[in-house]
Amino acid sequence: KYDELDTIVIGVVGGDGIGPAITDQAHRVLKYLLQDEVKNNKVTFKMIDGLTIENRAKANKAIPDDVLKELKQCHVILKGPTTTPRKGDKWPNIESANVAMRKELDLFANVRPVKVPEKGIDWTFFRENTEGAYVLGSNGFNVDDDIAIDFKVITTGGAERIARAAFEFAKKNDKKRVTIVTKANVVKTTDGKFLEICKEIGKEYEGIEVDDWYIDIMTAKLVDEKRRTQFQVMILPNLYGDILTDEAAEFQGGVGTAGSSNIGKKYSMFEAIHGSAPRMVEEGRDIYADPSSIIRASGMLLNHIGYPEKAEKLYKALEICNTEKEYVITGRDTGATNEEFTNYLMKTIEKL
Amino acid sequence: KYDELDTIVIGVVGGDGIGPAITDQAHRVLKYLLQDEVKNNKVTFKMIDGLTIENRAKANKAIPDDVLKELKQCHVILKGPTTTPRKGDKWPNIESANVAMRKELDLFANVRPVKVPEKGIDWTFFRENTEGAYVLGSNGFNVDDDIAIDFKVITTGGAERIARAAFEFAKKNDKKRVTIVTKANVVKTTDGKFLEICKEIGKEYEGIEVDDWYIDIMTAKLVDEKRRTQFQVMILPNLYGDILTDEAAEFQGGVGTAGSSNIGKKYSMFEAIHGSAPRMVEEGRDIYADPSSIIRASGMLLNHIGYPEKAEKLYKALEICNTEKEYVITGRDTGATNEEFTNYLMKTIEKL
Ligand SMILES: CC(C)[C@H](C(=O)O)[C@@H](O)C(=O)O
Ligand SMILES: CC(C)[C@H](C(=O)O)[C@@H](O)C(=O)O
Repeated sequence: KYDELDTIVIGVVGGDGIGPAITDQAHRVLKYLLQDEVKNNKVTFKMIDGLTIENRAKANKAIPDDVLKELKQCHVILKGPTTTPRKGDKWPNIESANVAMRKELDLFANVRPVKVPEKGIDWTFFRENTEGAYVLGSNGFNVDDDIAIDFKVITTGGAERIARAAFEFAKKNDKKRVTIVTKANVVKTTDGKFLEICKEIGKEYEGIEVDDWYIDIMTAKLVDEKRRTQFQVMILPNLYGDILTDEAAEFQGGVGTAGSSNIGKKYSMFEAIHGSAPRMVEEGRDIYADPSSIIRASGMLLNHIGYPEKAEKLYKALEICNTEKEYVITGRDTGATNEEFTNYLMKTIEKL
Repeated sequence: KYDELDTIVIGVVGGDGIGPAITDQAHRVLKYLLQDEVKNNKVTFKMIDGLTIENRAKANKAIPDDVLKELKQCHVILKGPTTTPRKGDKWPNIESANVAMRKELDLFANVRPVKVPEKGIDWTFFRENTEGAYVLGSNGFNVDDDIAIDFKVITTGGAERIARAAFEFAKKNDKKRVTIVTKANVVKTTDGKFLEICKEIGKEYEGIEVDDWYIDIMTAKLVDEKRRTQFQVMILPNLYGDILTDEAAEFQGGVGTAGSSNIGKKYSMFEAIHGSAPRMVEEGRDIYADPSSIIRASGMLLNHIGYPEKAEKLYKALEICNTEKEYVITGRDTGATNEEFTNYLMKTIEKL
C-alpha cells in the first residue's frame, strides 16, 4: 500500500505536557533513519501543532477542525500524549483527543505487542478501538442529580473487523491460538455479541485454536508465570483492551516502554501509551521525560510503512542503550535529558 | 449486632458444579469450630439446596422465589459458586445468581482482602457490589441485529455507601491511604460521579490521604513490586473491582485461595471467588476440587459474626497445611480429596 504512494506523509503531533519534548526526540530519530527517503521525497514530515488542551478547549472540541483537516492530509501519524480532563478538572467536558482521533480517522484496531523473550512472553493484543465503553465518549447522561448513566455499544461490523484483523495476523505470523477476552457472563448483550462474532469468524481459520476467558480471570492469568506463555493473540473490546495492555506492558518494563499502533483502512496512528504528565512540565522536568515509548511507537510506524529493517535497527539500538545504561533517564535532573539519550541512541544506530 | 441475636442463622448454599462438594467441607469446618455455639443454640445452620442452574432455569429466575425466601430467613450466608450461562449456552438468559443475590439482599460492599506479608502486600478492596456495569444485568438491548447496547449506572447513594464503608474501615484499621480507581477520563458521566463522591466523602476523614488512579494503569501498578506496597485500601465501581481483585488474588496464590465477603446492612454473604468448574464434575473430579477459597470465606464469616479468634485459628491452620503439604490438592486423582484435606485441616486446628 505505502510503496504505491509517491510520497508518504508522516504527521507529527506533539500533544500536551511532556508530549512535545518526547515527540521531538522521536521525530529526530525518524528523520535520521529516513534521511535518504526524505531527500528523494519518498517521505515527508508534516508538523501539526494545534492539538493542545488549550486549543481544544477554545474550539470546544476534542480535535479542532483545522487540526483534523491537517491530520487527514497525512498517511500516518506519530502522536505524543494528550491531556484528557475529567469531572472537576478545568474544561471537564472536552473528550479525549486519543479517543476522538481513533473515531474520526476510523482507526479501528489498536495493536499492542508485548514481548519479553526471557520470560517466554510473546503477546499481541488486538483491542477494538472505536466503540465498546468508549463509543459515546462523554455523552452519557444524568437522569437526575442522583443517577448517572453511560453506554456500551458493540456493532456487528465493529466486532467483525477487529476479529478479522486478529485472525489474519495470527495466520500470517503462524500463531496457533487466538484468545477472546470479554465479560460475557455479566455484560451479556454487548460482550455476548462480541464473543459470538469473534468465535464465528474464528471458524474460518483452520489450524488456529480459539479459546475465551473473562477479563477478571485474564488479569490473573497474565501474572501466572506458568500459564501466561500459552497466550499468543488476544482480541478484546475497547475498555478491556485498555486495561489488559497496560498490565501486560508492565512485564516488559512499564507503559513507559511500550508503543501502540492504531490502524485503520485509510490512516494509521502511532503513539506512546503513557500520559502527558503535566506535573513534570510544571516542575520544568519535561526535558527529563523518557521518550522510549514514543520512540518505540516510531519503530512500529517504520515497520508499518514498509521499513522493517529500519525498525529492527531502532529496536536493537534501544535494547543496547537500555543494557549499557550509559545514559539513564530517571525523570529527574539526576538522570540524562531526553536529548542526551536520543543522541546516544542515534550514535548507537550509526554503529550497527 | 450479632451478639444481640438469640440465634445466628447461617445459611449454607451449595450452588452448582463443584459447589456442593467444597461447600460441604467448609460447612464441616464451621460446624467443628462452632460446636459449642451450636450446642447452646447461639448458632444454627440452615441448608438451602435449590440454588442450582436447573432450578433457576425451571423458574426462569436468577434466584427462585422459594430459595430467596429461605435466604432471607438467614443472617449470614455461606455460598458455593454458581454457574452463569451466557449467549450460546443452554439457558443463556438466566442472570448470574451471585449478581442477583447481591442485589436482592442489598449486599452493597464486596470486601476482598489480599495479604502477602513476605511481599509487603496488605490490600483491602472495597468493590461496589450492586450497580455499575452490573446494575441491569442481562437487560441491555439489541437495537437491531447489528447494534447491541448495555448500560452502566452509578447512583449517589450507591457511591456514597461504598465510599463510607471503605473510609470507615480505613479509620478503624489505622490505614493512612485510600485509593479510588475509575476510568473517569473516558467513562465520564458515571465514573466521574463515582470519583467525585468518593473524594468528597474522603474529605471528612482527617489524616487519611486520598489518591486516585485509572483502572488501566492500576493493573500495571499491582505488578510493580516497588510501588504496589504503597496501596492499602481501594474503592472501585463493580466491574473494575471484579477485575482488579482477581489480579490481586493471584499474588496470594490465585483465585482458588481468596475468599470474598458481600456485606449489606441486613444480610451478609461469604463466597469462594472462583467458578463452578462444571467440567470437573462431568469428569467425576469434584471430590478433588480445592475447598481453600470457600474455607477462607468461612473464616471471613466467622470474623464477621463475632468470632475473630476462631477465624484466626482457621487461617493459621490453613497456612500450616499449605506449608507442610501433607495433603496436597491437585484437582486430579493424583492429589488428595477435599475430604482428606479437610480432615487434616481440622486435626491441625485441634492441635493449635
Ligand atoms: C488516554 C486514554 C484516553 C487512553 C485510553 O483509555 O484509550 C489510554 O489509556 C490508552 O490506552 O491509549
Ligand atoms: C461469577 C461472576 C458473575 C462474578 C462477578 O463478576 O462478580 C465473579 O467473577 C466474582 O467476582 O464474584
